[in-house]
Amino acid sequence: MSSEFDIWMSYQKQTIESILDNYLPNIESTLNNLNEVMRYAVLGHGKRIRPLLVIASAEVGDADSDALKQRIAAVEFIHTYSLIHDDLPAMDNDDLRHGKPTCHKVYGEGLALLAGDTLQTLAFEVLTQDNNLPAHQNLETVKHLANASGFYGMAGGQALDLLNTNKDTSLNELTMMHQKKTGALIAASVHLGLLSCQDYQEEIAIYLKQFAEKIGLAFQIIDDILDYQSPTEILGKTAGKDEEYNKSTFVSLLGIEMAKQYAYRLADEAISIAEDYLPNSQHLIDIAHFILKRDF
Amino acid sequence: MSSEFDIWMSYQKQTIESILDNYLPNIESTLNNLNEVMRYAVLGHGKRIRPLLVIASAEVGDADSDALKQRIAAVEFIHTYSLIHDDLPAMDNDDLRHGKPTCHKVYGEGLALLAGDTLQTLAFEVLTQDNNLPAHQNLETVKHLANASGFYGMAGGQALDLLNTNKDTSLNELTMMHQKKTGALIAASVHLGLLSCQDYQEEIAIYLKQFAEKIGLAFQIIDDILDYQSPTEILGKTAGKDEEYNKSTFVSLLGIEMAKQYAYRLADEAISIAEDYLPNSQHLIDIAHFILKRDF
Repeated sequence: MSSEFDIWMSYQKQTIESILDNYLPNIESTLNNLNEVMRYAVLGHGKRIRPLLVIASAEVGDADSDALKQRIAAVEFIHTYSLIHDDLPAMDNDDLRHGKPTCHKVYGEGLALLAGDTLQTLAFEVLTQDNNLPAHQNLETVKHLANASGFYGMAGGQALDLLNTNKDTSLNELTMMHQKKTGALIAASVHLGLLSCQDYQEEIAIYLKQFAEKIGLAFQIIDDILDYQSPTEILGKTAGKDEEYNKSTFVSLLGIEMAKQYAYRLADEAISIAEDYLPNSQHLIDIAHFILKRDF
Repeated sequence: MSSEFDIWMSYQKQTIESILDNYLPNIESTLNNLNEVMRYAVLGHGKRIRPLLVIASAEVGDADSDALKQRIAAVEFIHTYSLIHDDLPAMDNDDLRHGKPTCHKVYGEGLALLAGDTLQTLAFEVLTQDNNLPAHQNLETVKHLANASGFYGMAGGQALDLLNTNKDTSLNELTMMHQKKTGALIAASVHLGLLSCQDYQEEIAIYLKQFAEKIGLAFQIIDDILDYQSPTEILGKTAGKDEEYNKSTFVSLLGIEMAKQYAYRLADEAISIAEDYLPNSQHLIDIAHFILKRDF
């Protein structure tokens, strides 16, 4: 990872923070506690991998700046809603997220549930705001994000994950579950980046999708490795949850060394695709390296 | 209520059922249990007031039949998602809905949560499917539904309702809470009906909105009266919940007779608006009468 990338990422994360803040309900909307819960969940933390992917993939073309902001907010709102709901006692029952108590620990389950619901709605709402792109491209963006986060994507993957508890899972089943649960939204992030471009090209979309599928899976494998070997204080969420729930992971199925090699191979393949087929893709390549190197 | 209306409503409810069935994931998608939970929640029951309002308000203009179907499904999916989440232990903790055990009683809280999440996503997804309307009108439809169901609408109203428990509430506060919690989606239903028309007119939208705000509030007042006076077996959901949770209602604030008069007055005003300003509005007027007469 270059130092130039560190500077770029640090700058973009500040930009992302300010975009998310702007698209959340106005801070003075204190009609109820809901806004506070949404802000607690969204702001001030997070790796922002998905928004960074939106930004980096938008660099392959000529992005409209309003459209880009809207897509950045939309993917991160969907991601945050899924974390809030996933942390609830009915799902993973987690007390810690990004090193802070989870939403429902602070605000109660009812408001946490509603904050997740509202962030999902807001994700789609921001995609309907004005920009310089034709309406059909914005509508296509809504469609793509909904498809990636619904029954055939993220939520369907979470349902598979629920079934995965206390059950023998094959490598194929585990891969399919993760392709839906985390991979679909990561793939949507690069596609939404491209969909913020005025010169959107179908051919580029195909290579971006291949790139995203590989780094999405690599990301999840690294996640499994970190869950297995990192202490809670570094992870920022409760470590060892997979083992506690007797869930199959890439580590439990492949062993830690094979799992690492698999993640590195996937990232290498992703980087080759970016180098060979994606114009102006240095930041995408840097993100692929970053995913392998991260230790949190 | 005319017998002609009974026949119309019965026919439309069958049509609505088949539309909802078609837009749910294919019945053979049994990758996980999620589809079964969604189908359990959506199909086979419900008053279908919101889809009926979509259909009746689409009659004021020249509706595109695909667009109409998409809007029917979208409002009912949003409504059903809100019921599933509202019934969860974290919210109203209800065991019974439409005379059947609630989703989480049958499938567990995790899958119920996910089914609600997925139905919300699906609502927006169906609005991005093909029809004969221009893309900007479909995008406007997504925007309107998101606005009505998010922070400033339904979900915000549910957060206010959480605060309403065990607390003195004024008539103004109660009205505002219901305008968001149930009124916003009812108003969105008539607007989405109009937004399925190829000859959409802004002026009609204004009168439809006034009509909807009045019947939305009347609907809620009748709901409070029914919760107060109906046994559980007729209501199909647990009766007396408002009293149990020490919630202010139109009955507790106004008394049952005043509450009834208020609902009748609102419905009369709605009917006058329809008669005076909305073309071809007989079914809207019939629905207003039906809301007052319903005993479930």
